Amino acid sequence: MGVMVRWEPNALGRLQQAAFELFMERGFEQVTVAEIAERAGLTERTFFRYFTDKREVLFAGAAALSDLMVSAVADAPESGAPIDAIAAALDAAGTMFDEHGAGARRRQAIITAHAELRERELIKLAGLATALADALRQRGVGDPAASLTAEAGIAVFKIGFERWVAEPGGPDLTRVMRAALDELKSVTAGK
Amino acid sequence: MGVMVRWEPNALGRLQQAAFELFMERGFEQVTVAEIAERAGLTERTFFRYFTDKREVLFAGAAALSDLMVSAVADAPESGAPIDAIAAALDAAGTMFDEHGAGARRRQAIITAHAELRERELIKLAGLATALADALRQRGVGDPAASLTAEAGIAVFKIGFERWVAEPGGPDLTRVMRAALDELKSVTAGK
Repeated sequence: MGVMVRWEPNALGRLQQAAFELFMERGFEQVTVAEIAERAGLTERTFFRYFTDKREVLFAGAAALSDLMVSAVADAPESGAPIDAIAAALDAAGTMFDEHGAGARRRQAIITAHAELRERELIKLAGLATALADALRQRGVGDPAASLTAEAGIAVFKIGFERWVAEPGGPDLTRVMRAALDELKSVTAGK
Repeated sequence: MGVMVRWEPNALGRLQQAAFELFMERGFEQVTVAEIAERAGLTERTFFRYFTDKREVLFAGAAALSDLMVSAVADAPESGAPIDAIAAALDAAGTMFDEHGAGARRRQAIITAHAELRERELIKLAGLATALADALRQRGVGDPAASLTAEAGIAVFKIGFERWVAEPGGPDLTRVMRAALDELKSVTAGK
């Protein structure tokens, strides 16, 4: 006989879907890991193979987002200025979110409503700024230019994202962030 | 007879001094609130009149810093651009820290060494960005210009502060932040 080892198809996606549903139905605090696993038809043990806690379900995409943006910086034309490489990274992020509009907005609504989630988001954004600054240094950008350009990009990302989430019928994120970057250029120029 | 109610002169300052000494001597994790109170010659009860936990000792100045920077934005010449009001706020902050150089660097060394303190610092910086954006809106600056200008200022503050802390014999914080703001203007202009 022996133990049946069953491969769970798309366990990650099912856990995320179950968590989102439960967070929306009952509120983030009220939901336990056991309930998420049950709704997904999986075990708690499986949950903890993918996530350290229920907060992390909401930030599962952070590493992929960082990789995507870092690659965009690395692949940007060598002739461009550092801010152009960051603009390319913002475009890449925008395109990714624009393909998942409704899900990204639902996720953000949950985060915005909880201080502990907003804090974790700040930590993820700070990590993203560090990764982008490193990517710029890899291109030969010095300091503090690398750090400042990366932080400027994160400011645009943060403010652009907030505006995009607040206006569900509005322009897509890529456009909102391009407009925010233009606005940042304008305000730093003293306009 | 009756209970003696003793006024403790400069309890706040004594608690801060005691906490800094103990954090430096034994490391942040190892120190308890009871030990901080004892070193200061005060009771735990007095400690909790001033701070919610031992982390807050390191952020006791955050509200005063925010007030100082917000006032500088409010008092900046009406004819100036939003970024000039933020520059005035950075100057005010720089002057405050330059008067407490050694203490500010010691404090930062403790924060940098602990993830939970770096997280709380990110939260304080995000709160500072919100306060500065509100102060700009009070001056009639619209959105997203107000948020972006405030975030740009916080980027300069963060990077400038890191550089200043890393170079104890270097230029003062006011100068480091002015240079960082010039650099930010330069990188956003595509240089």
